[in-house]
Amino acid sequence: MKLSSYAVGGWYQASEDGTLVNDAVYGQPVALVSSAGLDFGAMVRHAREVGGPNLRRYTFHERAAMLRALAQYLMERKESFYELSFKTGATRRDGWVDIEGGIGTFFSYSSLARRELPNEQFLVEDDVQQISKAGTFLGRHILVPREGVAVHINAFNFPVWGMLEKLAPGLIAGVPAIVKPATQTAYLTEAVFRAMIESGILPEGAVQLICGGTGDLLDHLSEQDLVTFTGSASTGRKLKTHPNLVAHSVPFNLEADSLNCSVLGKSVEPGDPEFDLFVREVTNEMTVKAGQKCTAIRRVIVPAGKVEAVIEAIKQRLAKTTIGDPSREDVRMGPLVSTSQREEVKERVGELRRSCEVVLEAPLELLGGDPEKGGFLSPRLLYCDRPLEALEPHDVEAFGPVATLLPYRDLDEAVQLAKMGRGSLAGSIVTHDRAEARTLFFGCASSHGRLLILNRENAKENTGHGSPLPQLIHGGPGRAGAGEEMGGVRGIKHFMQRSAVQADPTTLSFISREYVRGAETKSDGVHPFRKYFEDLQVGESFLTHRRTVTEADIVNFANVSGDYFYAHVDELGAKESIFGKRVAHGYFLISAAAGLFVSPAPGPVLANYGLEKLRFIEPVGIGDTIQARLTVKNKTKKDPKPGERLTGVVTWAVEITNQEGKTVALYDILTLVERRGEAQAQA
Amino acid sequence: MKLSSYAVGGWYQASEDGTLVNDAVYGQPVALVSSAGLDFGAMVRHAREVGGPNLRRYTFHERAAMLRALAQYLMERKESFYELSFKTGATRRDGWVDIEGGIGTFFSYSSLARRELPNEQFLVEDDVQQISKAGTFLGRHILVPREGVAVHINAFNFPVWGMLEKLAPGLIAGVPAIVKPATQTAYLTEAVFRAMIESGILPEGAVQLICGGTGDLLDHLSEQDLVTFTGSASTGRKLKTHPNLVAHSVPFNLEADSLNCSVLGKSVEPGDPEFDLFVREVTNEMTVKAGQKCTAIRRVIVPAGKVEAVIEAIKQRLAKTTIGDPSREDVRMGPLVSTSQREEVKERVGELRRSCEVVLEAPLELLGGDPEKGGFLSPRLLYCDRPLEALEPHDVEAFGPVATLLPYRDLDEAVQLAKMGRGSLAGSIVTHDRAEARTLFFGCASSHGRLLILNRENAKENTGHGSPLPQLIHGGPGRAGAGEEMGGVRGIKHFMQRSAVQADPTTLSFISREYVRGAETKSDGVHPFRKYFEDLQVGESFLTHRRTVTEADIVNFANVSGDYFYAHVDELGAKESIFGKRVAHGYFLISAAAGLFVSPAPGPVLANYGLEKLRFIEPVGIGDTIQARLTVKNKTKKDPKPGERLTGVVTWAVEITNQEGKTVALYDILTLVERRGEAQAQA
Repeated sequence: MKLSSYAVGGWYQASEDGTLVNDAVYGQPVALVSSAGLDFGAMVRHAREVGGPNLRRYTFHERAAMLRALAQYLMERKESFYELSFKTGATRRDGWVDIEGGIGTFFSYSSLARRELPNEQFLVEDDVQQISKAGTFLGRHILVPREGVAVHINAFNFPVWGMLEKLAPGLIAGVPAIVKPATQTAYLTEAVFRAMIESGILPEGAVQLICGGTGDLLDHLSEQDLVTFTGSASTGRKLKTHPNLVAHSVPFNLEADSLNCSVLGKSVEPGDPEFDLFVREVTNEMTVKAGQKCTAIRRVIVPAGKVEAVIEAIKQRLAKTTIGDPSREDVRMGPLVSTSQREEVKERVGELRRSCEVVLEAPLELLGGDPEKGGFLSPRLLYCDRPLEALEPHDVEAFGPVATLLPYRDLDEAVQLAKMGRGSLAGSIVTHDRAEARTLFFGCASSHGRLLILNRENAKENTGHGSPLPQLIHGGPGRAGAGEEMGGVRGIKHFMQRSAVQADPTTLSFISREYVRGAETKSDGVHPFRKYFEDLQVGESFLTHRRTVTEADIVNFANVSGDYFYAHVDELGAKESIFGKRVAHGYFLISAAAGLFVSPAPGPVLANYGLEKLRFIEPVGIGDTIQARLTVKNKTKKDPKPGERLTGVVTWAVEITNQEGKTVALYDILTLVERRGEAQAQA
Repeated sequence: MKLSSYAVGGWYQASEDGTLVNDAVYGQPVALVSSAGLDFGAMVRHAREVGGPNLRRYTFHERAAMLRALAQYLMERKESFYELSFKTGATRRDGWVDIEGGIGTFFSYSSLARRELPNEQFLVEDDVQQISKAGTFLGRHILVPREGVAVHINAFNFPVWGMLEKLAPGLIAGVPAIVKPATQTAYLTEAVFRAMIESGILPEGAVQLICGGTGDLLDHLSEQDLVTFTGSASTGRKLKTHPNLVAHSVPFNLEADSLNCSVLGKSVEPGDPEFDLFVREVTNEMTVKAGQKCTAIRRVIVPAGKVEAVIEAIKQRLAKTTIGDPSREDVRMGPLVSTSQREEVKERVGELRRSCEVVLEAPLELLGGDPEKGGFLSPRLLYCDRPLEALEPHDVEAFGPVATLLPYRDLDEAVQLAKMGRGSLAGSIVTHDRAEARTLFFGCASSHGRLLILNRENAKENTGHGSPLPQLIHGGPGRAGAGEEMGGVRGIKHFMQRSAVQADPTTLSFISREYVRGAETKSDGVHPFRKYFEDLQVGESFLTHRRTVTEADIVNFANVSGDYFYAHVDELGAKESIFGKRVAHGYFLISAAAGLFVSPAPGPVLANYGLEKLRFIEPVGIGDTIQARLTVKNKTKKDPKPGERLTGVVTWAVEITNQEGKTVALYDILTLVERRGEAQAQA
């Protein structure tokens, strides 16, 4: 009954009972929540001194493997989480978004880290910057984990997803976390957190939990720490300006609710698939989580002439929305998280009524649940006749099953209305007319962190207005808090410090573990294709023998490829070409370079599976002599799938030069190289 | 004498005299500065309603052309700026950094925008994200200009660079600006600003200027606006928490002074080139701009045993530093910007003396300038015996020709000392030992926005500890303000809103003007190689005839390329390979694809100059039949150099498939395509 916090390596029971939390459905006591007596300073020090160093010992791929293992562990226990989730008012469908959606972010981040990040403890970003003429001084950005703790302050509506979507990028980055769930639904967060600790997968100090108030936690934070906050704008702003956070420039990522809109295109007629899609999306967003989503549609922007049709269609759909005990399979919508939340929403609807009328408010017929002690509220749709003049629909957020219909006359007006939300997390545009979609997209983009364009093409597969995805940013300007979460690798970088390193090429290669053109190369005389992954070193290089390009080569290459482009085979045309003469095919040059550098017999280099950044710099004419240099650029060990050979990816920088030493072509090739394997490596 | 502001399309003289500013050298009056009577709200509205729309009408390349023209215009007038710059206390060398360095950021940003950005009004970022199984729903990030105004609040020390380095990325992004220089050196900023207006290059409303206080300016800002601030941490924090900025989540980029360090490697001995380099760098940073640089070295971290040698060497170099009227060629260091700044620095030195001793303070012998009315102060070097315990050297910033020597015993201690600055803009590591460089780099990276590694390899070409570069980020964590400026394209993105768009492939292609795999393609039956740049459309596609890959092809290709890799030509080896059989060379496939899609006769497609993102997905064996599809992915018009043909870059997405419809290879090719030219295009 009394929730525990997890601090400095152990579970902690507060010295007081604290706040009593009731379940959302029947109003029965579920948990007592308090953090009284917690030593917040010790938690911060534990994260910094134990958790951080423990996490930073691993590479991105190793941390990604932990996340995957954790996700599997949690997925196996999901049914126990659903049981608790029902008590928060969530139906199974709502819980799926929270629980399996949350665990999904662990899977997603685990995959993308292994796909897009190196198997290293730091991240090299962008190309090398040429900042000196002779090339003895170069610049590059390198990112390293911040050496502090990430404090995650979460909202009540997604007790699982809210924790996991923030932990995922932070842990991959190598930064420990202190999680502070909202008190109202902390019992579900605590259960999931407890499973993570029980799994024993994360190193000591990587994660801690505060159930209850944060006390003087923020007073202990400093330059290397950071805070992410999801919740109400007013609390967010207060915390953002906390004197200690400001004094130490502690990054504060604020993600607040916003008055998101969905726009029905002017071209859409009742009966079109887009009309049904729009109505389905609006009603879904009103009823999923009983409308308690920061991305829910609050403002329904429709062509003036179609208001009646839209209201009628929404009415029909909402009529099918059964309300009651969310653990029942026949119930589509559960209660709000608490009775006080219900009262709060009612109050907001009262404010909205200053400029809007209620056009739909169904009587509350419950399938289970306590109508008084539960947080039940039937969906209500409002309509604002003069939305360009009214303040409330763009400013008052009723965080429940409530939306307001706003009519528009032309696309300019639709854009204007969308922007009156003053910054939103998500918006949607429903139309099959591409020109209309483009006008609305570019009209709304500056005030939206995410915009969906929905139509018959993606009706089946679209992920829905209200679903943030790990691959795309979650956050929006202005009212939405001007924060950014997730968005693929970008989300991981939020937890890292970017440092520009300036050095000579050899030192830069040595530090970044990536060969940089101009750096010293080395060779022990053994052909690098004869070496296993483990034995290849960054900067190891092979200079090939030479080959003179003859007319016969060009002719033969044209014959075998079928490429008779005039610049290669037409003496008259080639004279008028930008080259002024017949030149070798570019593809011949890279093929001949392979002929020069390949070591033909079977060996550890298994395949050349890709090529990047190829540029033909100098044309090669008949009689020119080419030579290639192959240098190990970087290496990434691959996780083998069961039964697969142990391999790694080796990227080679290739430079083809001519008899004058001029660079003819530059490119990188990607090869799969066999590993000797750990046992042999140790022998 | 009385400086003007530039507001709402015209020059404005304040209704009061305001602050009297004296020159730094002789203490003579230079300017009266006041913004009294300015209508700040009208300025903000003018930027939003006139400047923003005017700028957004142009593409990145067109705005880049404006910047280049402006830079040329200013460069032609640089001598008049140097005249005013002397009055601020800057020598010619100091002025070069400010004036020509500042104009240089315009040139740099102009080049990088044309090189790295599309010729469009929006920016597509990252790869397309696959967020649905069948591929009917995709995600991508698109950046658009913020639709507000950027308010730039600048410091006194770089009146020209400070303005231009912020204007450059913001104007390229398409965001208008209001510039507020520091009062003390506003007369130089005003002169440069005046030249920009006179040039007539920027559209109306793109830039405005406030000489004097900002009044209620910040009260007028809102969600789409942003603020950048360079100056003292205390003022910065105050502005950052301005209630109106917080209420509207106005992004605030803070760049504050920091206690930057330079570390002499443990391996460096007196007499080594690195020792001299270190001493030169430290003395330079103490004397350039009389030490009034936010990136200057304040903490000189040296091996304990080499303290004496370093002090002696610094003494010898500083003895050669002539001080006086900065307009004289024989003067190396000018005065501080004002007498009050001199008193301020003296006070800070007094605070430092609590835990440090002054080991060098040369008598002040002036070559011109007024010793009393000018801001003259001789360089002083301090030494702290117990730097791990002392607070002052890591906390008190004397913003003048002052640095403190801190001894260390081992590299761990050096890192610890570096970090005690609690976040710095720049640091340097001077060593020729790469392992030492790596240890120090990764030790310091999390607390530094930029780190230089200096040694004999880059001694001639390194750009120096204190010089931010447009290509690399300028900013640092913690004390440095946790902001980020410049850093190449990244700096431009700070002025834009990132919006994640989710749509079906065809709509996404239409909106992003980039063909996305899976989108509808089109063809009018004309081979796309026969079309001029203007006539090619994104999504225009060509499906080639087919070709069966035979054993003869593989043999012939091996013969012409010289690539006899076993997987292609050795029946026994190939059986054991990961392919299990002989397969065609990857380079043969892309060569044969070119043979299939190339239109051989001379035409508008001039050359294939590059290739990107090639992946071989499915091996092709003897008897397989391949086919290629060539689709216009995107187009970028190129600015012709004088005498050059009018061309554009067309990127083509190539997909090779086999007889089962499986994808064999995917890649992009880059071609140079002739333009019909404007005159013909209009005909």
